Amino acid sequence: MTGVAGSEFSLIETHFARPAAIQPPRWLKLGIGDDAAVIEAPPNRQLVSTLDTLVEGRHFPESTEAASIGWKSLAVNVSDLVAMAADPAHFLLSLTLPQDDETWLARFSDGLFRAAEAFGMTLVGGDTCRGPLSISIQANGWVPPDQFVTRLGASPGDRIWLSGCVGESALGLALLQGRIDPEKVDAATTARAYTALNYPQPRTELIGLLRRHATAAIDISDGLAADLRHLLEQSGAGAVIDRSALPLVDALSPKQGLELALSGGDDYEILFTAPPVADDALREAALELPFDLSAIGRITESGCWLVADGERIDLNDYRGYDHFSD
Amino acid sequence: MTGVAGSEFSLIETHFARPAAIQPPRWLKLGIGDDAAVIEAPPNRQLVSTLDTLVEGRHFPESTEAASIGWKSLAVNVSDLVAMAADPAHFLLSLTLPQDDETWLARFSDGLFRAAEAFGMTLVGGDTCRGPLSISIQANGWVPPDQFVTRLGASPGDRIWLSGCVGESALGLALLQGRIDPEKVDAATTARAYTALNYPQPRTELIGLLRRHATAAIDISDGLAADLRHLLEQSGAGAVIDRSALPLVDALSPKQGLELALSGGDDYEILFTAPPVADDALREAALELPFDLSAIGRITESGCWLVADGERIDLNDYRGYDHFSD
Repeated sequence: MTGVAGSEFSLIETHFARPAAIQPPRWLKLGIGDDAAVIEAPPNRQLVSTLDTLVEGRHFPESTEAASIGWKSLAVNVSDLVAMAADPAHFLLSLTLPQDDETWLARFSDGLFRAAEAFGMTLVGGDTCRGPLSISIQANGWVPPDQFVTRLGASPGDRIWLSGCVGESALGLALLQGRIDPEKVDAATTARAYTALNYPQPRTELIGLLRRHATAAIDISDGLAADLRHLLEQSGAGAVIDRSALPLVDALSPKQGLELALSGGDDYEILFTAPPVADDALREAALELPFDLSAIGRITESGCWLVADGERIDLNDYRGYDHFSD
Repeated sequence: MTGVAGSEFSLIETHFARPAAIQPPRWLKLGIGDDAAVIEAPPNRQLVSTLDTLVEGRHFPESTEAASIGWKSLAVNVSDLVAMAADPAHFLLSLTLPQDDETWLARFSDGLFRAAEAFGMTLVGGDTCRGPLSISIQANGWVPPDQFVTRLGASPGDRIWLSGCVGESALGLALLQGRIDPEKVDAATTARAYTALNYPQPRTELIGLLRRHATAAIDISDGLAADLRHLLEQSGAGAVIDRSALPLVDALSPKQGLELALSGGDDYEILFTAPPVADDALREAALELPFDLSAIGRITESGCWLVADGERIDLNDYRGYDHFSD
């Protein structure tokens, strides 16, 4: 908490210190208010650590409500832990704010703590400072020895699985920015799109399945095409994706839904690979999940193709979200 | 590493991936390039974690050279670990940059890695994004069970100890900003002042002494007066500081040197308390240290006073660095 002086210190006390009524967890030896936090490492676990910064105007539009910024800042980090098959545990927050704004802070911290409760995370420390609005969250989880899942392990023949639906968050952003006519999208799809954009749900339910079955995993933050390529590059492999199996936003033209999925990003769904021997176990487990789990393709030796009705599209032509076109 | 796409990914590969010649430490199960880093927790240790953000124009002037920003970003975090008596271990970096600038990045990473080597820290992951220049570093250390030192444990009768010299960094800033006439300061003092400002040295040599002897500790980031008060508030105690024992910048008027020390901040010296029974051990250990260790006062029941020649000054009147006056 270096650099937290005067009124900024009070801000933390007011908005981020845990209410006295809530017992701090027993593993938290020292929380907010000192030079650092102290955490008892659980026996027989490896530490999984990630750090992501969200900058206003870059990772969220300026109009975004404070509660959503609080929720999303933590959710995107938890999604990284899920992609590693780690159990979410604790996090640190560094908040850079242009000025004190009690209302904004109350709403931001409300969104943040709702996410923390939803994902089983405890805020243990951090920092506030003055400057252009940005939020850095450093999230930590624990995993049994060497049961973490990387981007490296996909092998030719592995099935490619995808949670949820891709493109919804990009649809939300396109609607917000007026790039897609809201009258052309039904109310239920619009609601799901804004929820995906502002309150993404990291797929914590997948953690156990990933440990048991996955050979590689990644979360979809830069768009399905870009993140699939990241995984393939690290694994030294290729892929064929089946267009008809892709879980797309369905209230749009097929072309538009596909574009949003491939290039949109910001989905925080999990793409993972598993050998075909795990098919039955995964299909059975999928019945219990609160979201879809789709087998969308398979790992090959090289290339990155989307196949549909005898046609094939080179996914290497799809870049990240800034190449979005509708 | 969510959100690292395209050219930003290459930036990390170029400037922050460890050279292949350097063997990653055995405890690093997975480093840069995946969704998160995986670290083997050492047996019988607690995790100590801190997160600090440095914003351009706020924590360093716009003219600051990139190598200094890299060094200082890590150093201020290591100083927090030292204040907890934790052994520095690994860190994550989130770098927000207005634009790609290869020269700047090469120098920044050079300063960062020199600091990492100096303090025994390994970069294990992080994030880059586009936006106003700021650097978040999340630093981690390890400490034997319950041997960490907090701000809570100072008791009346304890001696107050201070490493190094306070006010040098504030002098460097005042010289840079033209608030103090450079002609009035000798060359050696000027050099030390700029070094303290741009290349602060966290006092890692104190870690063992703090574990053995300290009842409370804090690092001096907000000025001696403000940080002493933080420690006293948490400990529920008071203090009397002996003006003649304070290690001040000596090339200035006594009044100016005192002001810089009390209100300047950015020193990253360690202030700690220990019972008088530790006096001899600390004085003997001090002979081996590459910096001074001064007994500057004692803990009392209440109040926060500086005494000098029969006069006493209420340290509660001294605020943080923005109340600096020369």
